[in-house]
Amino acid sequence: MATAAQIDRRFGLDRRVVLPGLFALASGQSLAALEIGYETYGELAPDGGNAILVCHALTGDQHVASDHPVTGKPGWWRRLVGAGKPIDPARHFIICSNVLGGCMGTTGPSSLDPLTGERYAMRFPVITIRDMVNVQAELLNHLGVGRLRAVVGGSMGGMQALDWAVAHPHRVQSVIGIATAARHSAQNIAFHEVGRQAIMADPNWRGGDYPSDAPPAAGLAVARMAAHITYLSEVGLTEKFGRRLQDRSGLGFSFDAEFQVESYLRHQGLSFTQRFDANSYLYITRALDYFDLAAPHDGQLARAFAGSRARFALISFTSDWLYPTAEARRLVRALNAAGAAVSFCELDSPYGHDAFLLDAPEMNRIVDGFLRAEP
Amino acid sequence: MATAAQIDRRFGLDRRVVLPGLFALASGQSLAALEIGYETYGELAPDGGNAILVCHALTGDQHVASDHPVTGKPGWWRRLVGAGKPIDPARHFIICSNVLGGCMGTTGPSSLDPLTGERYAMRFPVITIRDMVNVQAELLNHLGVGRLRAVVGGSMGGMQALDWAVAHPHRVQSVIGIATAARHSAQNIAFHEVGRQAIMADPNWRGGDYPSDAPPAAGLAVARMAAHITYLSEVGLTEKFGRRLQDRSGLGFSFDAEFQVESYLRHQGLSFTQRFDANSYLYITRALDYFDLAAPHDGQLARAFAGSRARFALISFTSDWLYPTAEARRLVRALNAAGAAVSFCELDSPYGHDAFLLDAPEMNRIVDGFLRAEP
Repeated sequence: MATAAQIDRRFGLDRRVVLPGLFALASGQSLAALEIGYETYGELAPDGGNAILVCHALTGDQHVASDHPVTGKPGWWRRLVGAGKPIDPARHFIICSNVLGGCMGTTGPSSLDPLTGERYAMRFPVITIRDMVNVQAELLNHLGVGRLRAVVGGSMGGMQALDWAVAHPHRVQSVIGIATAARHSAQNIAFHEVGRQAIMADPNWRGGDYPSDAPPAAGLAVARMAAHITYLSEVGLTEKFGRRLQDRSGLGFSFDAEFQVESYLRHQGLSFTQRFDANSYLYITRALDYFDLAAPHDGQLARAFAGSRARFALISFTSDWLYPTAEARRLVRALNAAGAAVSFCELDSPYGHDAFLLDAPEMNRIVDGFLRAEP
Repeated sequence: MATAAQIDRRFGLDRRVVLPGLFALASGQSLAALEIGYETYGELAPDGGNAILVCHALTGDQHVASDHPVTGKPGWWRRLVGAGKPIDPARHFIICSNVLGGCMGTTGPSSLDPLTGERYAMRFPVITIRDMVNVQAELLNHLGVGRLRAVVGGSMGGMQALDWAVAHPHRVQSVIGIATAARHSAQNIAFHEVGRQAIMADPNWRGGDYPSDAPPAAGLAVARMAAHITYLSEVGLTEKFGRRLQDRSGLGFSFDAEFQVESYLRHQGLSFTQRFDANSYLYITRALDYFDLAAPHDGQLARAFAGSRARFALISFTSDWLYPTAEARRLVRALNAAGAAVSFCELDSPYGHDAFLLDAPEMNRIVDGFLRAEP
């Protein structure tokens, strides 16, 4: 027999909702008929106390624990979310939505502007992490979730999780931020700018007005390749590839992908273009660049968390040079100064920033313990 | 009254020489009528004992201590080479040549193939660091220099310096390698591959057959931007730019270069395209990727230096993550194992790989001391 929750069309995989009215953005602009693509797993407890929001990273999506509709690959955080995992549909009501500006169901530059009937393209307003968070808050309203037991994310997902505690302090019981930071560094911005310039230099980009069957794939692939290097560590790359050659016994004196690492990177670049929109990449990287929780408080990060009542768990990885441990420690100091309860752990890993998406038993144990210790 | 050396047209600034016959390359191919662009400073001592070869890095050239003919900027290593500097024309006979594959006078992909009368473009053979060194050896023959008192270089220049000791052990008295390594790592190769893909993705590249007035500037600029990040350190970028905005008081919600670091990178990319050939960039990065002194010796680096009789000075910089100190230490261990005299110093600097080109008094003192201690 189906329960009320099971037949409620708001819940389940591959859901959509369109927000009524205008959605106001940090820039002062607004979006009409904003659509949110999302998924939920498990059932909301009668007291609403088991809701966990999972936030995805730059190129992630709402398919946290379901197969990806384009690639067919398993959900991107199946190691952490699923039956018997720290975030478990048997115990938790799990929400994951595509971010504002994305290309997997939530309104972004590839969506049709309801006012013109044409794609937004570069007429889409520049957005921020705060805008993404506020869209998620609207989604919670739609789902009837008042307060989150936890908001969890890695990388850009962790930034959203942190910003939840700042923007909606009364709605967040605990925050788990993994491989993340309270701001984008100059080096982070620099790498994003390289990616954006690569996309914009592709003549197929056409100022953003490319047809969907002729996107700036070459530029997007280069952007992805550059970014992908930052997701790995020098040690990890050496372990995985070193200077090993691809399908050959000696140097070929050519510009083919002779080294395995070249072949791997080219594949990463190419496959990315089949599932991601180039303009979305521009907008989301820009949102990341703008992220700096301390900026509205004269650089004093602790003040950003002054109104927060959440408990925090922060995890960093030794070989992550994109959001290094130093940034996590900066957060810990600020949270301590703000009087927040915070636990922090740096985990040993050779896999760089990507470690949070890979097999990380210690990370799972920490997340599980932190969630179970919830009052 | 002019001395013999002063009127000898082989010596001085902005020199050229064409090698007779065919020049054999590591690939098995050969080049006819190979031209070398070079400069010399100072006078060769009667006993020939004061010759110092300075080797340039990826995008450097022979103008080590003379103004650049395109940009008008002072020579790239004026801090180390010049009157009163550790390498001093008053005491040393200094040679610096544009590398094979370059675009400043030495034969490269932008040169005319004497057999066809057309530009080589991608018909230029793939070259190696060893090929570059062997071209320099021919230049020494032309100049009447038998043995080098020292060969000195930073980055790719350091690789040439190291390879000199391996390829021509009897012609090298001492080697100074700065911010360099005995091999290109997987991460190094990965960054180069991003740059090459950016160039090749530019439709103006045309398979390498671009007219000189319509080069693949956009792709080359992206390649330079990506590479430039690797020349700096995260700390250096933060110190120099942080999250400071360019000519504005608040976020502009645009894709303009709002952050200073964006503006800086765009400038670096753009100005580079005015002085460098895209195909040269492809060939020289490939030569770097191929560089691995231990490869012909089953990975045993010490064996590469078995025949060397040179003294070595190695310098690394704390914040250099392109050729980190670990690579210099690997070299030191190998040189020790080979019984070579080697001194090594890691210098504290926040400026990343670029530190060797900047004001570095300690580096100058070490180079000066090492050269003066020469028997």
